[in-house]
Amino acid sequence: MSQNVFKVSSKSQVNALAGAVAGGIREGKVELQAIGAGAVNQALKAIAVARGYVSPQGINLTCVPAFVDVVIDGEERTAMKLIIESVNH
Amino acid sequence: MSQNVFKVSSKSQVNALAGAVAGGIREGKVELQAIGAGAVNQALKAIAVARGYVSPQGINLTCVPAFVDVVIDGEERTAMKLIIESVNH
Repeated sequence: MSQNVFKVSSKSQVNALAGAVAGGIREGKVELQAIGAGAVNQALKAIAVARGYVSPQGINLTCVPAFVDVVIDGEERTAMKLIIESVNH
Repeated sequence: MSQNVFKVSSKSQVNALAGAVAGGIREGKVELQAIGAGAVNQALKAIAVARGYVSPQGINLTCVPAFVDVVIDGEERTAMKLIIESVNH
């Protein structure tokens, strides 16, 4: 089972990201990483849109939010990660 | 089964909200409503913190993000709602 990790910014396009989530979830788990409120917002919107993409295949997406420390330019920052899982019906 | 709905703002305190989520989830489903990136960010952080509060009781919190239209001061806005569910082990 593979795990795709996508980094999300406040400028990430919701529909493109939703497509990547929908594609990735068919292969396994998907994780979105976001730093800052704008990025977190885009990530969450993308999951809501992706739910609509995969719902006709009987896939129900849920997400688990968690904190993760990441190092950017030598500085430690706290990012949110959203672990997306599919619950089949 | 009752459903608690909490409105979240960008100024909501994460720990207080997490406590409300943890308390509410023992009674049934909890829904967080947030408008704007700052509010969505606080909501998501609160869920991550609440996971830690209920985890020792064997409760695993997951969330489902969705769009919802709300009317504020006579104007229609799109909010995010986060439906929080507990998965018992």
